[in-house]
Amino acid sequence: LNIALLPGDGIGPEIVGEAVKVLDAVGKKYGHTFNYKKGLVGACAIDATGDPYPAETHKICRESDAVLFGAIGDPKYDNDPSAKVRPEQGLLRMRKSLGLFANVRPLVVFDSLVERSPLKAERVKGADFVCIRELTGGMYFGRPQGRSEDGNTAYDTCVYSREEVERILKVAFEQARKRRKLLTVVDKANVIATSRLWRQIAKEMAPQYPDVQVDYMFVDNAAMQIIQRPTYFDVLVTENLFGDILTDESSVISGSLGLLPSASLGSDVALFEPIHGSYPQAAGKNIANPMATILSAAMLLEHVGLQQEGAAVRAAVEKAIAQGVVTEDLVDASMPGQTARSTTEVG
Amino acid sequence: LNIALLPGDGIGPEIVGEAVKVLDAVGKKYGHTFNYKKGLVGACAIDATGDPYPAETHKICRESDAVLFGAIGDPKYDNDPSAKVRPEQGLLRMRKSLGLFANVRPLVVFDSLVERSPLKAERVKGADFVCIRELTGGMYFGRPQGRSEDGNTAYDTCVYSREEVERILKVAFEQARKRRKLLTVVDKANVIATSRLWRQIAKEMAPQYPDVQVDYMFVDNAAMQIIQRPTYFDVLVTENLFGDILTDESSVISGSLGLLPSASLGSDVALFEPIHGSYPQAAGKNIANPMATILSAAMLLEHVGLQQEGAAVRAAVEKAIAQGVVTEDLVDASMPGQTARSTTEVG
Ligand SMILES: CC(C)[C@H](C(=O)O)[C@@H](O)C(=O)O
Ligand SMILES: CC(C)[C@H](C(=O)O)[C@@H](O)C(=O)O
Repeated sequence: LNIALLPGDGIGPEIVGEAVKVLDAVGKKYGHTFNYKKGLVGACAIDATGDPYPAETHKICRESDAVLFGAIGDPKYDNDPSAKVRPEQGLLRMRKSLGLFANVRPLVVFDSLVERSPLKAERVKGADFVCIRELTGGMYFGRPQGRSEDGNTAYDTCVYSREEVERILKVAFEQARKRRKLLTVVDKANVIATSRLWRQIAKEMAPQYPDVQVDYMFVDNAAMQIIQRPTYFDVLVTENLFGDILTDESSVISGSLGLLPSASLGSDVALFEPIHGSYPQAAGKNIANPMATILSAAMLLEHVGLQQEGAAVRAAVEKAIAQGVVTEDLVDASMPGQTARSTTEVG
Repeated sequence: LNIALLPGDGIGPEIVGEAVKVLDAVGKKYGHTFNYKKGLVGACAIDATGDPYPAETHKICRESDAVLFGAIGDPKYDNDPSAKVRPEQGLLRMRKSLGLFANVRPLVVFDSLVERSPLKAERVKGADFVCIRELTGGMYFGRPQGRSEDGNTAYDTCVYSREEVERILKVAFEQARKRRKLLTVVDKANVIATSRLWRQIAKEMAPQYPDVQVDYMFVDNAAMQIIQRPTYFDVLVTENLFGDILTDESSVISGSLGLLPSASLGSDVALFEPIHGSYPQAAGKNIANPMATILSAAMLLEHVGLQQEGAAVRAAVEKAIAQGVVTEDLVDASMPGQTARSTTEVG
């Protein structure tokens, strides 16, 4: 299996390094060979090449079966969002050029960590849903985007075509079919035209999935229900910008951002990454939690058909949590008297 | 004082009726005369006139000093968001034609109700912030909006002009100045052009308010922080669609939707309304909580300079809560053995 490694910025290199240790252990135990190729992306790529997603990195990704990605972002760019070259541009270009149109984020609340959730335990316990975010359309890529000549008016365009909507809804219907069979389509069809297209197409497709119950929810209501009734959801699907907001909102209710993996799927190559960011304050300190990246590697294994191997990785992570072999972010919630382990120890 | 009453749909007429009782009591006690004029808006206006915001209603609003609004929305329109005439259109037209560009929503967590919040008590206790949402621009009103000729592509436009951004930021800076002096400007400046204009203008204006600390936050991060650290915020300002999502998210963390008022401010006339919706299931049953509407009336009084009168209304609401004179939605949280009171009793 050819795996592209894109560690990126901040804690990226450390956490991806630990996931590679885990993959190597899997290879040894189950008799697989993983070939890694490293590529630059984000701020480190700008520093080295001037380009946040160099052609060389794109080539490495295209020639791989899957990509394991760390995180991008550096504080030196955060306070200057209008800088000509920014790490985010690399991320967006990577998603678009690899055709990664479906971002899949499972949200599980670990029983043992329920006290870490900002929500009351009885509300959040048992929550287990998947957010599916469209990742290569909408306002992120719609044109025209820019300023009037005098600079005093700005505009963005949100565009969706039938083809874009159908392919992401197909992913969502199929996920729902494999799970509890409830699909929540989130939009703002009472106000915007692109949402009305989404809702129309979802209604057209629904009869092909008679076993799936489809539920339509306005995005403002969804933002409330995720907090009010997180256990209600099974599969939630939405467009790019709403997905950006709702997936992040969903992720914090678990109380353990450091445990959440994600997959971005498209035509051929798939990409796996932890949902937390580059956490620059922790970079180089050997304190970041590598579990979300390790669980992303588990998703990668499952994606290429190595179910047993993926399950073994998940089991190892759960065992480590149960035994209190965790980084500082998870210490309080587990056994008393335990101390924070380093990134490498947890890995 | 000339007050336009727009009860709207669902529980609207009941809750506005109770607020009028309160206003009349204020008038009697403090020697004011309030002249009311009623107008139709929403589903009831469509039923009566075919138009969700009839010209007659607009005239009544224009000739008033302030508008007290209930809610709009009827289930018969909810499942058909592409119906030609919809209650929401009336709402949007009303906002636009009255120039109500600033939606102001104070979010207070009552200590005695902290157990009703979906958030853990220690997280949410003491949260006290104001969301300011731009209400007449962005994707809600941007054109072009629609479909390609073959119907297979849909598009929306988000537009903001300097003038629109400046006037709403001015409201926000001034609010912050009256409060804890922390203004959080929420945008997605790392991806969209309208957000970059917002951020640029906020940075230009900040030196005029040296006493206000300005904080820039991406909308996805804000969706997380509202849950993680609700006590952090003082004044939060954002564009129309982000505001739709974030104000609703914020409102549920209080655990008492039935207590949250709002104001929509513009050039001359101002509008006041509870943030909960038309709650059609409760319509006509005399069970809906009128307190959010009564507190909206308090905001109305304060807006026209009747500070003492507004404070008296607030004090009365707090006393009613403390004494357990509450509708069923608030019963559990207050004293044991108490029973739910009706809308009219609470009024
Ligand atoms: C960094 C930013 C461009 C990106 C996005 O908005 O998609 C991030 O928030 C994410 O969700 O991966
Ligand atoms: C009903 C709808 C058009 C409206 C909006 O999106 O503005 C509502 O959600 C609100 O927040 O008042």
